[in-house]
Amino acid sequence: MPDMPSQHVPMPLGEFELIRRYFDRPGSGIGDDCALLRPTPGLQWLVSTDMLVEGRHFLSTVSPQALGHKALAVNLSDLAASGATPRVFFLALALPRADAAWLEAFAQGLFALADEHGIQLVGGDTTAGPLNLCITAMGEAPRAIARSGAQVGDEIWVSGVLGDARLALEVFRGHVALEAEAFAACRERMERPTPRVALGQALQGVASSCIDLSDGLIGDLGHVLSASGVGATLKLDALPRSSWLAAQAPALQHTCLLTGGDDYELLFTVPPGRPLPVVDVPLTRIGRIVEAPGLHLRDAQGHAVAFEGRGFDHFASS
Amino acid sequence: MPDMPSQHVPMPLGEFELIRRYFDRPGSGIGDDCALLRPTPGLQWLVSTDMLVEGRHFLSTVSPQALGHKALAVNLSDLAASGATPRVFFLALALPRADAAWLEAFAQGLFALADEHGIQLVGGDTTAGPLNLCITAMGEAPRAIARSGAQVGDEIWVSGVLGDARLALEVFRGHVALEAEAFAACRERMERPTPRVALGQALQGVASSCIDLSDGLIGDLGHVLSASGVGATLKLDALPRSSWLAAQAPALQHTCLLTGGDDYELLFTVPPGRPLPVVDVPLTRIGRIVEAPGLHLRDAQGHAVAFEGRGFDHFASS
Repeated sequence: MPDMPSQHVPMPLGEFELIRRYFDRPGSGIGDDCALLRPTPGLQWLVSTDMLVEGRHFLSTVSPQALGHKALAVNLSDLAASGATPRVFFLALALPRADAAWLEAFAQGLFALADEHGIQLVGGDTTAGPLNLCITAMGEAPRAIARSGAQVGDEIWVSGVLGDARLALEVFRGHVALEAEAFAACRERMERPTPRVALGQALQGVASSCIDLSDGLIGDLGHVLSASGVGATLKLDALPRSSWLAAQAPALQHTCLLTGGDDYELLFTVPPGRPLPVVDVPLTRIGRIVEAPGLHLRDAQGHAVAFEGRGFDHFASS
Repeated sequence: MPDMPSQHVPMPLGEFELIRRYFDRPGSGIGDDCALLRPTPGLQWLVSTDMLVEGRHFLSTVSPQALGHKALAVNLSDLAASGATPRVFFLALALPRADAAWLEAFAQGLFALADEHGIQLVGGDTTAGPLNLCITAMGEAPRAIARSGAQVGDEIWVSGVLGDARLALEVFRGHVALEAEAFAACRERMERPTPRVALGQALQGVASSCIDLSDGLIGDLGHVLSASGVGATLKLDALPRSSWLAAQAPALQHTCLLTGGDDYELLFTVPPGRPLPVVDVPLTRIGRIVEAPGLHLRDAQGHAVAFEGRGFDHFASS
């Protein structure tokens, strides 16, 4: 669709040339009104859409390369939670200006991750406007893993470690100081999260439910519990964390672990005794599904712990 | 994914409540990490993504109801150009604030058009940020109509009338004055375009190529010509226009007809002698596909007409 003609801003690079130069790779099929897909007969299609806004989902200090990575990673993480194999994605991009160096770095970060997971950019849209990235990613699975399958007695597991992305944000906000090496590692977790695609696929037939930890453990586990009509007990001490997070004050650790968000690890439930897949990311058992509704936090001695935080809400007032 | 906690703005309505109240209709399946689709075996899937930015794709004077209509209409128009039957769509929405009256009107406009075409909202994303709407719409077809099928000798047709949306914009810009009734009609065309979905479906097996007129006749026909490796002659006098556009100065008429954009009519090519479908929108023959590359404009006497304009480019410097 056209811009309003009166709003044109001088740009060194045209829209179609911009697409051709940075985003149209051989065989992509980009250019028609619609992208044409031929779904594999008998498989389900899983679709995820995420919109990233500067200052809300990423800091203005992020490199365009990391931003290209993260914009796709958050969608791959959603596909991973469904156990899907990534296939194609669509990129809609609003840019304040068509800056060649920025676009080149952004495309590099985007396609490096896309190639790693064999997912192809097949369409999208570009326009001038406040920086905004919207990616819709699609994958296939024989049978998607849902949030709603958790059963009383199931074990609750998570991949990787939690809370580092939030810890990096606390450093950017000036609330915490970290050694350079620890900060670099946390910042990498915040800016270049690793979607657990292979784990998600390996959980097909194993996990009774799965979700990716994007909005914080309490909020995201809460979605599983309400969708499944169950409750959970969580062992606070069992939550996997890095050595630098473990060195922080307990209150900050709990904030980062329980409500930090931006982890992009998978949280999943497994019936007791069912063997876990062998994958190259650590898996930690953190609790159990119970009948009593709600989320029950326990300390190392098994005593109840109160926690006031909650998951992120983009329009919340706190 | 989470907002940056430091950026929270007080909002009267939470994100999940916002989705539940305005966008989650019975049976939509909204809420999992991914939407789950079961494609019809043997059919192709067509996918369109369009991003709308305030001040660029719509004026701040537009009603939220019209905006809800238009955001979906531009995607349905892309599906129509492929001859697809609309099935599902995804909405990503960045909003400066969660305003109940705005959301209610927006959802009303959106779902009125969705229901008309039997397309279902099955997923998306909401976040705070500068107003931005990104819709990804999906449809099915036995065999998509492409831009690349135009053959030398084919007739070129368009649906409806062209140029009214641009004429309305010229009124908003203060360049033209119109009678109230004519302005209301033009403004309706700009703010509430009618996607030609039934026509697109009826053109399966009839049209050799098809495109929707979103960026202006010259630019969009240019896409067909370059994709098909052919040229075209266009009869300027044959271009269908409203009586109020026909009453304007010839230069303005040509601008509105040839480069106006925002028409959302279909332009398609048909081999000579092949019968057209019977549809409830007027169809006009405006030219012919020829071997000589490029677009050749002709006046009523068949003489060549020079025209400097071109289609819209979101990053163009003119």
